[in-house]
Parts: sequence; C-alpha cells; structure tokens
Amino acid sequence: MTDEATAFVPGHVTGFFTVHRDDDPTASGSQGAGMTLADGVSVTVERATDRRIALNGQPASIGAVETVLETLGVEAAVVAETDLPIGSGFGISGAMALGTALATNQVYERALSRNELVTIAHGADVQAGTGLGDVVAQAAGGMPIRLEPGGPQHNAIDAVPYRPRVEYVTFGELDTGEVIGGETELISKAGTEALSRLVSEPTPEQFAYASRRFARESRLLTDHLREVIQDVNEAGGDAAMAMLGETVFALGTGLSDAGYDPDACRVDAAGARLV
Amino acid sequence: MTDEATAFVPGHVTGFFTVHRDDDPTASGSQGAGMTLADGVSVTVERATDRRIALNGQPASIGAVETVLETLGVEAAVVAETDLPIGSGFGISGAMALGTALATNQVYERALSRNELVTIAHGADVQAGTGLGDVVAQAAGGMPIRLEPGGPQHNAIDAVPYRPRVEYVTFGELDTGEVIGGETELISKAGTEALSRLVSEPTPEQFAYASRRFARESRLLTDHLREVIQDVNEAGGDAAMAMLGETVFALGTGLSDAGYDPDACRVDAAGARLV
Repeated sequence: MTDEATAFVPGHVTGFFTVHRDDDPTASGSQGAGMTLADGVSVTVERATDRRIALNGQPASIGAVETVLETLGVEAAVVAETDLPIGSGFGISGAMALGTALATNQVYERALSRNELVTIAHGADVQAGTGLGDVVAQAAGGMPIRLEPGGPQHNAIDAVPYRPRVEYVTFGELDTGEVIGGETELISKAGTEALSRLVSEPTPEQFAYASRRFARESRLLTDHLREVIQDVNEAGGDAAMAMLGETVFALGTGLSDAGYDPDACRVDAAGARLV
Repeated sequence: MTDEATAFVPGHVTGFFTVHRDDDPTASGSQGAGMTLADGVSVTVERATDRRIALNGQPASIGAVETVLETLGVEAAVVAETDLPIGSGFGISGAMALGTALATNQVYERALSRNELVTIAHGADVQAGTGLGDVVAQAAGGMPIRLEPGGPQHNAIDAVPYRPRVEYVTFGELDTGEVIGGETELISKAGTEALSRLVSEPTPEQFAYASRRFARESRLLTDHLREVIQDVNEAGGDAAMAMLGETVFALGTGLSDAGYDPDACRVDAAGARLV
C-alpha cells in the first residue's frame, strides 16, 4: 500500500504508419515504426479524492488520462513532467495515459497485468483521437515495428535491434486528431510500403529512409520540414519527419552536422516502467 | 561498421514453469513466470578470425553461444562478464546466447530483427538443454509471464507490472539439462496450476506464493531450500526457489530479515539491450 507511485514513459517519434479503425478501440490502431526516446514523461499518481491532472505545473485536460482513471474506477492526482515539446509528435498523451495506468495500478492495488494496463491506455489514446500506436510502442521501448495494429491482445510487435543516438528539432504543432480522423487511404498505402521496406532490412538507416519516403508519399510532409530534411541529407545524414508534428528527427549527429541546434538523446532501452 | 559491440542481458530467476517439447526448437519452450534482474551479464562480441568464448576471464564452452555464432555464420570472440552465480538458476547461458545474438548482429551487420535474434538465441538455449524460457524472458525484462511457450513467433507474454527489490542467495549448482530432459509430467501439472494462480492476480506477492507451491508440488524443492524459505516466511517475508538452482530469492528484504546475507538488486526494467 503506497500513497503515490511514479512511472517513466519514453517519448515516441513515429516514422510511418497505417490507420486501422475498429468499433472496439483496443482493436483499433496502426501498423508502423518509430523510435522511443530516453527523453520522456515522468507521471506521478497520488491518492486523492478529486481528480486533478497537471502537465509541467499547469492544469491540463487530457482525454486519454481521464479515460484511464475512469476505466480503473478511481479519482487521483496525476502530475506529469516532461522536457519534450508538447503537441509536436512525441506521443505525450500516450505517455501520460500509460504512465497513469501503471502508477494507478500500484497505488490503488488494482492487480491488473501489464498487458491489461497497456490495453486500457491504448484504448484511451485511440478514443481521445490523440494516438494510434504510441502507447504500445512506448510500452515496448527500443525501436518498435508494429507489424499488426491494436492493443496487446491483437497486435504483433518486432523491433529494429539498435539503440542509436537521436537528434530532434521542433518548429510547431500539428493536430493529430485532424489528420488521423480524416481521409487516410493515401497514408495507409504509403505506410504499408514503408513497413514492407523496413521488415526486409530492419536497420536504423532503412527506418530513416522508409520514413522519409512515407512522409513524401503520404503528402504529410510540410514544405519547411522538406527543406530541413534535405539540409541533413546534404550534410551526409539521415533525417525524417515525426508523425504527427512539425518535428524533424535525425540519426546520430545529422541535425547538428547540418547546422541546426537540436535536442539529443538515445533510443530508450526499456519501455514504460515504474521508477 | 564497428569492430565490437556490447549487450547487457538481465539475469532471470524462474519461479515456476511447464515443459513443452517440439521437433522445432524455436517452438519448444515453457510457460511460466520469473523475475529479470538488474544484475545480469555483459556480453562483448569482437570481430575475430577464430572462435573464442570467455566467461569471467576463463575460456568457456557454452553450447548455446556456439549455436548462435554458427546460425549467424560468423567466427567471433565472445567475452562475457557477470557477478551472478553460475549454474545456479540465473539463466546465464540464455543471457550469453541472447547477448551474443544482439551484439553479433551489430558487429557483422546481419540486419536481422529483434524477434529473429531472440528466436535464434531461444532455439540455441533449448537445443543445448540449458533453458526453456530464460531467453524470451530476458528479452522482455520486468517480471514476465510466459502465457504460451516458444520463441517470439509462437509465444504470448504478459507481465506482473511491478519492479520490486529482490534478494537472492545461492548454496550450490543444479543441472538444468538433467531435470528438464527427464520425466516432466508432475512439473508441467504444477506449473499450469501456478500460472493460473498468477494470471488471476498478477502481483509480486502472488508470484512468490505460486512459485513456492510449485516448488513443493513439482518435488523440485530441496530440503535445504525448504528450510531457508521457511525461515523467510517466519520472518514475515516472501521467498521461493529459483528454477533450476540451489538458490532462494525473496521479495524486498525477506532474506536479510531472516538473518541471511543475500545479494540484492531490483527487477530489471529493460530487457536485453545493446549498451
């Protein structure tokens, strides 16, 4: 019995994805691949009689977190801290949902399994329209390849078995819900091709290449990001767009070498965990 | 292109298990549950023209590692270091096989996926008769519940979503191959019951209780370990036997409280990873 627990959940940049909708949110989701980041979100759940959610010291209304608390049948205080940019393709909402699930299970002794908690958080993120695959990727850690969509009862996950350094730079926000709620045929076609490319050669370089092609072919690439990615390429590096944010990520020192001033970290080894 | 790479693989104490044999080693394995340990094995693979395997500075003949190198088609120097007791139920052979697979893939640019590497290491550990489920657990990290046996193409894994402190003390060695190569009906019956118990309440305490019952009902419990576990219980703690070793592990400070002088660490968060 404890009065509070803290979970760390890695950030997640998606390189490419497909969209799969199902009446059951836990069966909905996406195929695709991304990199989980050692930079992430720390989520502390405290026993409380009324619900409070805060992100970086400010009250926050985060649908996925509210759904997790409702599903677990508790009121609690959820206090999250992150250095990652918000609303820019790092899976903050998924991280908060998953961290809330893991920490609430401990504080309120819900005796649920890890897969059950991931399922709850994934379904909540899907329902809120804030993510399709971040939660299952953040649970896995590393560089997850989502071979089949959905939560743990439905999906199939492999990974690129490397942990490169990642650089990232953000220029603004994009609305995930607007994109994944709209017409997605072109996205899924490009995502399927990118997945097949990565499965045939699961290396960081192939991931960056497949992601770059996906951004172009899905028509999600913005003009500004196109220029940044080209700058990195011309400096001999590998970069792509984080889905969905006005964010470019690069392997190694790709963005620095091209003269940008990025943040940097390594691919996270662990996936979401109680700290 | 690098000349060497190092992987860290957590130790793994199995609390209970079943035995499933198949003509295909990657489909063979076990159901069961255990704890991966922040104490583990560091495995460095160096490019070399002849095969060398060393464990803690001594030349070692480890069938599972040899099979991994053969499967990946390379000669290499494999240098492993660990503070864990050897031959005492910590999954050292599985750790060495998995670490060799991950590091060799990087050094020799084999471009295999994480699941493919886990499959190779699992199959090698099964073929060598040194483990049935350590490798897939060590790949996952945490407190893995192996719901279905075999490598990643066959199995299903959940987990107890906690990371308690673990204490362990070892009194000698047991031969894994001798036990899992013999009559296993009683083991699998007790293992199935323990699994059902843990799935209904996936907490560390239930894991320890199910493991304790399994050790007794499978008749694998030795007289000496029975006394140690009873000492821990009388001091108010939770302990069980590590399968298969003359080793007792306890949650929290269970062994210290009972007057033993154990090693201690936390449950590992990450699973096997390149460092």
